[in-house]
This record gives sequence, C-alpha cells and structure tokens, in this order.
Amino acid sequence: MTEIIEISQNICFGGKQKRFKHYSEVNQCEMTFSIFLPPQVDQQPAPVLYWLSGLTCTDENFVQKAGAQRIASELGLIIVCPDTSPRGTDVPDDPQGSWDFGLGAGFYVNATVLPWSKHYNMFDYVNQELPGIIKQHFPINDNQAISGHSMGGHGALISAFKQPGAFASVSAFAPITNPILCPWGIKAFNHYLGSDSTRWSQYDACELLKQGVEPLPVMVDQGSSDAFLTEQLKINSLEKAAQDNGFPIDLSIQEGYDHSYFFIASFIEKHLRFHAKHLGLSS
Amino acid sequence: MTEIIEISQNICFGGKQKRFKHYSEVNQCEMTFSIFLPPQVDQQPAPVLYWLSGLTCTDENFVQKAGAQRIASELGLIIVCPDTSPRGTDVPDDPQGSWDFGLGAGFYVNATVLPWSKHYNMFDYVNQELPGIIKQHFPINDNQAISGHSMGGHGALISAFKQPGAFASVSAFAPITNPILCPWGIKAFNHYLGSDSTRWSQYDACELLKQGVEPLPVMVDQGSSDAFLTEQLKINSLEKAAQDNGFPIDLSIQEGYDHSYFFIASFIEKHLRFHAKHLGLSS
Repeated sequence: MTEIIEISQNICFGGKQKRFKHYSEVNQCEMTFSIFLPPQVDQQPAPVLYWLSGLTCTDENFVQKAGAQRIASELGLIIVCPDTSPRGTDVPDDPQGSWDFGLGAGFYVNATVLPWSKHYNMFDYVNQELPGIIKQHFPINDNQAISGHSMGGHGALISAFKQPGAFASVSAFAPITNPILCPWGIKAFNHYLGSDSTRWSQYDACELLKQGVEPLPVMVDQGSSDAFLTEQLKINSLEKAAQDNGFPIDLSIQEGYDHSYFFIASFIEKHLRFHAKHLGLSS
Repeated sequence: MTEIIEISQNICFGGKQKRFKHYSEVNQCEMTFSIFLPPQVDQQPAPVLYWLSGLTCTDENFVQKAGAQRIASELGLIIVCPDTSPRGTDVPDDPQGSWDFGLGAGFYVNATVLPWSKHYNMFDYVNQELPGIIKQHFPINDNQAISGHSMGGHGALISAFKQPGAFASVSAFAPITNPILCPWGIKAFNHYLGSDSTRWSQYDACELLKQGVEPLPVMVDQGSSDAFLTEQLKINSLEKAAQDNGFPIDLSIQEGYDHSYFFIASFIEKHLRFHAKHLGLSS
C-alpha cells in the first residue's frame, strides 16, 4: 500500500477538498495531488473524474478556479487532480527555463530519452499508479472518466483513446489535438521521446484516430477567441480526423471565449453533467 | 472625467470580466479594479455590488476563486472589486514587511497619520472616488450593495453603517467585527489613525452599532472552523452588539468551514441572491 500524507483539507459545498503528497515509483519523486470528495461518499462509493491540467499548472489551479465542487457535490462525483509533471530538486527542467517544457509541462507521456526518462513518466502515473493509489485510499466504484484543459485536454484524449474500456467518457477544453504538428508538442516530444518522430504518433489524438479508436463518448469545447487556437491547439485537425474516421465527437466552438479558467468555469457544469450521465449518476 | 485604461477582458458566463487601472486622486497613486458586466447591461443599466477583499488580496482573488460570475450573469448584477490598498513604489509599506498591515492591508479607513495619510485613504476610495468612476464609465442604475471577506467584511459593514441610505443591503463573510479589540485591527489602526484609540471607533462595526445605525438588511456568514474566529474576527461581539442595540442581522455559523475561498465559493450564491432581492432584481 502506498503511503499518502494529507497536506490540507477544506470543506467546500458540503464535501471535502483535500490535498495529498506521496512518493511516486514511476516518476521517482514526490508527487502531489488534489481530490474532492462529495458528501455522498460517506454513504457509498462514488465514480471518479480525473482532471488533467495544462502547461504551467499544478494540481491546484482547477481546484481553486473552475468552480467544479458545486456540481460534483450535487452529483456525487469524486474529482482527482494530478500535478502536471514530476517535481523536486532531482528532477531535470528545461535548461532555458521556459514554461512549455520540463517542470509543469510533462505532456502526459512516458519519456524514453535521458535525462527525462527517469522522472517524466506521466502517462503511467496518471493512468496506472495514481488510480491504484486512489483505489487503495478512497471509496471509489469502478466507473471513471477523464477530462482536461489544453495540454491536459491532450492528455485526457490520448489516455482514453489508447486504453479501450478504461473510461466511461472523455472530455476536453481547448485541447492540444495534434501535438506532433504544433510548436509546443514538437519541442516537448523531441526532448521526451527523441528526434525520431515516428515514435510520437502514439501520443497524438489525431494520429490515434487515424489508427482506429474504440468508440466512447467524447465532448470537446473550444473558445473562438483562444490566442493559441490556430498555431497550437488545431481543433480543426481533431474535427477532420474524427470525421475522416467515422468517430463521433460532440464538439462546440464557444464564441468569444479565450484559453483561461474563465472559459473552463463557464462550461465545467456542462462537462460534469455529460460525464455523470456516462458514470451512472443522475445528471 | 477620470481616465481608465483596460488591462484585460475575459468572456465569462456570457458576460465580460474586465480589469482596469486609473490614477486615484484620493490615494495619490495608480489603482487597479476588476468589474464583471453581465450580459443584461447591453440592454439596460444594472445595479452594482461592491466586493471588498481581505488581507493580502488584490482585486483578482474574488474574481478568480469565488465563482460569482455564474450567478451575477443570471441575475444581471455588476460586481466591482477594488484593490485592498494603495500600491506603487511611492506608497509606504510596513517596514517589517508583514502581511497584515501596509500593502494589501488598507483596512478601508482614511489614514490620518503620516506617512500613511498621503496614500492610505481607502474609505473614500471605495465609497466616493471609485463609485464616481464606475458611474462615469459603466451602465449602472442607482442601486448598490456591498459585501466582503474578513478585512473586507469589516470594510463592507462600516461602509454601510456609516452611510445611511448609500446601500440597499450589506453582507459579509467572516468579517473582522471589532477591529479596535483584535490584534490585526489594533496594529493597523495604531499606524493609520494614531495611538489615540478614541479615534478608532468610527471604523469599528460593533462600536458603530452601539452609537446607532439606520436599519438596513445585513447578512453575515461565519465558518465554525475558521482559524481566526476567536482572536481576530469575534463574530460573537457583532452578534451581541446587534442584539443589544435592537439591530437585526441574518447571521449563520457554517459548520466545518474555514477562512478560505472554498468557504466563500460555497455561500456566494446565497449572498448574491440576498442582495439581488434588495437591489430590485428577481432573485
């Protein structure tokens, strides 16, 4: 059993917003995560939504800014927020100190190239190690879903697409849809996965759709005034890959919204009710 | 007309969350404020709620963490968030650099003692200068209310109590109710108002109630697990002063909640609907 240490607890909308740290075997460092436990878990196990955050975030941004606890408390939904990268003095960072690679920018892949491969194994962390820890310590049932924002939207999509049957549903806010063809993704994958770009497609939502993905409910929202839309996020690429491969996606362009948490807060209720429906909760 | 410069705009719940800076005559420095404009203001003027934040905050904490835009957008309520003190390189700060006095801790008083009196005139700023600027630049009607948290709850209560008829209603989350008898208030008032404590009572909600306050609707929420409750906030003192002086207050102790924005987020809807009723909006 992995030991976890409680860092904080705040009552919120009748539930418990908690934060824990623990040693991660797959990332070889101490990791932090946040978890919201709705009041219903005092009576019976609840389903879990994993939320993956974007570049520069920690486990705390979503917790403080999205306003999700109100709806999770009503629905009886546990929300788990991992950090966005390994952390600690032993963990290498971008030597240039940029915000789009290294600490806070793990891109939810398993790195294969030194020095990154020792610690940067976020795909296995969020999909294997952390769910195992959650199951050990919290009253969850067998239903889980996944969502995320920007780099975390990419993480949510590839997690669901690569693991048939693992999630009841997946959603994303302004995801990086085609990382092998955008500057953020090319920079990160070059470092984490090496320069042979044929190895990158396993972590690219559009490429996975081309290879064939088992159907599951997918919801995506994208703001029309998002400054990163054209160069980095490329929602049209996801729409085309889905259409070309007969894969239905519930995609909405939200007029005037940008890339911020003001956008996420405005539509998180829509996403949580979508997941609740597929997680066996009354939405 | 005071010139204001837009710093940012984000669409949020169909409304506009904006941030501005301007030169303040009463504080003799540049000030920043945030304003949420619900979609209804495109059709007709709306009432305004002023939100006063607590120690260490800026105009942004409430905007990012309270989740108020959802309800303000539904109700058609403008929310204005001032900063919590004057700012800038010319503005003196606590020489000890502590967080409970000086920058981020203006305590919503007009300082009378040098060097503070040149810049620290937050009572006149939030009650006179800023409302004048809001009226010049935004489609408001004549109805306004005021609310706040901790130091800002104190600011909201004294603003309403000292100015009969100025506000349709006032509310507070975990307010500093009796600053002349708590460590935060004694420290701040000693500096801003001088050591003659007879001058402090004009800025103390409990003392104002003893002197007599014109009736208006008042709602207060206080978390039972607030770490500052006994030493600093003293909700019992407010309750007693109100009872002793026949002044009704809608006071609730919220079991298990602490002093954080998780507490505010959990009950902001209750407060906004309370104000809406008194501001002539359908709540």
